[in-house]
Amino acid sequence: MNDIKHRILSLVKDDLSEIEVALEQNLKPHFDLVSQIAGHILFSGGKRLRPLLMVLSAKLCGYDGNYEKTFSTIFEYLHAATLLHDDLVDEATLRRGKPVAHSLWGNAIAVLVGDFLLARSLSIAAETKRPDVIKVVAEITENMSQGEIHQLMKKGCIDLTETEYMEIIERKTAVLFQGTCRVGALISGVSKEKEDALAGYGFNIGIAFQMVDDLLDYSQNTPELGKKVGADLKEGKLTLPVIYSLQSADATDRIQMEKIIKNKDFSVEDFETLIAIMKKYGGQTYTEKVAQKYVKNAKNALEIFKNSTTKEILLTIADYTLARKV
Amino acid sequence: MNDIKHRILSLVKDDLSEIEVALEQNLKPHFDLVSQIAGHILFSGGKRLRPLLMVLSAKLCGYDGNYEKTFSTIFEYLHAATLLHDDLVDEATLRRGKPVAHSLWGNAIAVLVGDFLLARSLSIAAETKRPDVIKVVAEITENMSQGEIHQLMKKGCIDLTETEYMEIIERKTAVLFQGTCRVGALISGVSKEKEDALAGYGFNIGIAFQMVDDLLDYSQNTPELGKKVGADLKEGKLTLPVIYSLQSADATDRIQMEKIIKNKDFSVEDFETLIAIMKKYGGQTYTEKVAQKYVKNAKNALEIFKNSTTKEILLTIADYTLARKV
Repeated sequence: MNDIKHRILSLVKDDLSEIEVALEQNLKPHFDLVSQIAGHILFSGGKRLRPLLMVLSAKLCGYDGNYEKTFSTIFEYLHAATLLHDDLVDEATLRRGKPVAHSLWGNAIAVLVGDFLLARSLSIAAETKRPDVIKVVAEITENMSQGEIHQLMKKGCIDLTETEYMEIIERKTAVLFQGTCRVGALISGVSKEKEDALAGYGFNIGIAFQMVDDLLDYSQNTPELGKKVGADLKEGKLTLPVIYSLQSADATDRIQMEKIIKNKDFSVEDFETLIAIMKKYGGQTYTEKVAQKYVKNAKNALEIFKNSTTKEILLTIADYTLARKV
Repeated sequence: MNDIKHRILSLVKDDLSEIEVALEQNLKPHFDLVSQIAGHILFSGGKRLRPLLMVLSAKLCGYDGNYEKTFSTIFEYLHAATLLHDDLVDEATLRRGKPVAHSLWGNAIAVLVGDFLLARSLSIAAETKRPDVIKVVAEITENMSQGEIHQLMKKGCIDLTETEYMEIIERKTAVLFQGTCRVGALISGVSKEKEDALAGYGFNIGIAFQMVDDLLDYSQNTPELGKKVGADLKEGKLTLPVIYSLQSADATDRIQMEKIIKNKDFSVEDFETLIAIMKKYGGQTYTEKVAQKYVKNAKNALEIFKNSTTKEILLTIADYTLARKV
């Protein structure tokens, strides 16, 4: 993984530094406390993948203005807002190895700082003075909240289907990746064809990204994950590796899996047993293959663009989505 | 109160019915559960004052389109979103006499349905295709979250000043009233002078409205309030009637007031004692007088508009703000 990550990082170093500056400059909180709590989630080692994708999409479309870094903060603020609210909804304790905001400052302030970040992201969207851009951002927000609601409604449901899982991850993750790439195209004024191509690229890597994220929860090598092992299951979230394995397992294995899943205080040994059963039925391999398919779709979507360094970087980012699983 | 309320209601009956229909039609939730929870807060006897003010402002400015009812839902959805989040932040138990959403469905879903309502309001703002309108809506949201954060930061502070109180209520309440009136003007394409006049009207009645709301918490006649007596104080919120009385009280009375305020489990007798001390120092009367001043400012702001039924209704609504206190 490190190789591909370093390759991307060396190519986008300057963009990332400028995004970092923009994130500091555009927050504009009225209170130090907001700055502190928003900063806790914003400046804690996030990859800046979402703003970076907007900046690269704009570059690929020949954007010639000076505001792409400012506009790109929309997508990181939006992401941070949903992380604040989702950690609270999931009753999570750790994020990127650090205690979550609501455990440090309380639920109330986590809700309100999340609202502030959401509002900032929409204010910056308004600064584009482009109704089409604003519409995309508002729709992302609508979709993400409904994706999270859907996930919450299905918490603890042992019979969640692959179709429902797809619906949830499309809304909660893929639409944001789709939107950030679409907005990069929109501010550059390219054809609808190119706009849709970039949106398709974003959507597909968003799906792959989430699937790999879900896969990482079942990797035994999780100290670098920065959250608790088996966190998804402990939160009652069934993801594709488990869904596929449950579907394929014979009665005995299925019963054993269900027993472990339903007991949210499962031990490390139970979790390892579960992983072994999943491996037997190929849950992890299946998820990986599906993710690969989405990465392939993402790369294909960029075919209409002529070759360039930026296109190369976007293709490498698509590969990186998968490389994270190792 | 009933007289003035009935007079207004008879004059805006048709507008209110159309707003009601628009609120049902524009929610567009993907899940029944969202519809149910959003409906719990949206259709529980709210006065629709915010959307009504937008519709009346547009009418006063000669708006000749067909979308004012749709656009007016922006301000009720936004209001409902903040109610959902604020009830959670305040750990409130009752709203309009009914159990609050988070106590019925849990904090998680209350946060997410609030996010959904916020997102819907911004999506509808985007439908105006007017960057100036969208900017107003985004800024309202930013201000409201920061007003709530400020209030939360000052929770339990016995030395909250009148200036800080004003800052808090400007952000958490007045900017929404200001924004709804401004947007009514903006979609009608009137002069900046008229736009600012309506914004000024909205801002001033917003302040008066909040002051009367805060006053109602110290009225002994509270069964119709639909929330617990002394709820503000129990939540650690100091409002103008108390702030003024604390400032003016002699040492002995001040000590007694502080003792009651600091004990959040104060009895009904304690609360009555507090109200009596406040009365002695004129906290209620002072607040009423300040509110009257804002209502006067609101009415003066409309001077540049020629007389009409709509202007008459807006002036009556300004008076109604004060009449609520009885």
